[in-house]
Amino acid sequence: MQTKLEKISVQTRGIGHFAEITEEIAAAVARAGVREGIALVRSRHTTAAITCNEPDPRLHVDMKDAVYATFPTSRSYRHIEEGAENAVAHLATAMLFGESTWVPVRNGRVDVGTWQHVYLVELYEPRLREVDVAILGE
Amino acid sequence: MQTKLEKISVQTRGIGHFAEITEEIAAAVARAGVREGIALVRSRHTTAAITCNEPDPRLHVDMKDAVYATFPTSRSYRHIEEGAENAVAHLATAMLFGESTWVPVRNGRVDVGTWQHVYLVELYEPRLREVDVAILGE
Amino acid sequence: MQTKLEKISVQTRGIGHFAEITEEIAAAVARAGVREGIALVRSRHTTAAITCNEPDPRLHVDMKDAVYATFPTSRSYRHIEEGAENAVAHLATAMLFGESTWVPVRNGRVDVGTWQHVYLVELYEPRLREVDVAILGE
Repeated sequence: MQTKLEKISVQTRGIGHFAEITEEIAAAVARAGVREGIALVRSRHTTAAITCNEPDPRLHVDMKDAVYATFPTSRSYRHIEEGAENAVAHLATAMLFGESTWVPVRNGRVDVGTWQHVYLVELYEPRLREVDVAILGE
Repeated sequence: MQTKLEKISVQTRGIGHFAEITEEIAAAVARAGVREGIALVRSRHTTAAITCNEPDPRLHVDMKDAVYATFPTSRSYRHIEEGAENAVAHLATAMLFGESTWVPVRNGRVDVGTWQHVYLVELYEPRLREVDVAILGE
Repeated sequence: MQTKLEKISVQTRGIGHFAEITEEIAAAVARAGVREGIALVRSRHTTAAITCNEPDPRLHVDMKDAVYATFPTSRSYRHIEEGAENAVAHLATAMLFGESTWVPVRNGRVDVGTWQHVYLVELYEPRLREVDVAILGE
C-alpha cells in the first residue's frame, strides 16, 4: 500500500472552459504504479472547480448558463473588488460544482462510468490552474 | 492497511427516487474486514447523484422540487436530444448534489451522524445504477 | 502507511457562520504524524456543511444570501416541523455546499491553495457540531 501525491497544471481559456483532465489523472496513476486503489482529485483554487460529466460541449454551455441563471451578475455582491463575475466564480466553485472528487483505479486504469469524464471548470478568467491528485493503493 | 474496491447495483424507480445505500455500504465494509478506516462512495453516472441526508420522504420531495425550481425544464437547453429532463438531470448531478462522498469506518461499522443516511439520487428515469465503494483501512 | 480517524468539535454562532477549521485539521494531521498523504474531512450533520473558500467575511455573507436567493424561505416546504429555515438548511447542505472534501498533506502540513481555507458552514442555528477527519499516509 502506497500514497503518491502529484500536481497537474492546466491552462484555461476563460469562463465556462471545461478543461478535461481525465488523461492527466490516468497518467499520474500509471506513474504511481498503482493497480488497485483510488485517485482523489481537487482544485487548488476558489474560482475554478472540479466536476465529472459527459463530454458534450453543448452540455458545458448549459452548465455555464445555469451558473449565471442561478447567481446573476446583476445582483449586488459584497465581494466585489474584482467584479461581479469574480463573486459568481467563488459561489459557483463552492456552492455548485465543488472543488473535489475521487475516481477508482482498477487494473491500473482510471475506471469511471461510460459517460463520466473529469474536468477542471474555469469560472473566472484564463489562468494557469493546479489540480492535486492523490493516488492510494497497491 | 488494505484497499478493497466494490460495486453496488441499485434499481431506481424514476426521477426523485432517493435509493438508500447505507446498508449496502456497511455490508461492503464488513466483507472487506476493515475495522478502522474510510469508505469512499461515488455514482458511476452523470444523471444519478450521491447525497447524504435525513430519511424523511417529504424532505426528498422538497429536494426534487428544488431541483426543478433551480433548473426549470421550461428553459432552453442545448443538450436536448433526450428532453429537458435529461439536461436538468445532468445539471443537478454535477452542480447540485455531486457524485461522490466518503464515510468513516469505526469499530468495523459505518459511523455517520445521527441523521445522516447515504442515498443514490435518481434524476432521470428508472434504471439499474452502479455505485463504486472503495474501502481503505485496517 | 497508516489510517487515523479523529473528530473535531466546533461551536457555531448561527445561520451563515463560516467556522474555520483549517488549523484544527492541521493539528489532527500533526498528531497523526503523517508527512505525505491525505486528510478527508466531513460534517456529521445534515444542516451544517463543509466548504473550501477565501477568508473574506463579505464573501461569506454573499454565500449566505445566495442560499436564501436560491431556496427562498417563502416557498412551501414539506419538511416543515422546525420551520422553513430548517428545510433550507437541509437543501443547502446537500445540494449547495456538500458535506465532505479532502486536502493533501505534504511535508507534514495541510497543503491547500493560496486562497483556500476549510470551513464548517452553519446553516441552521447555534450548535456544537462535529467534523470527521481521516488521515491516511506515511
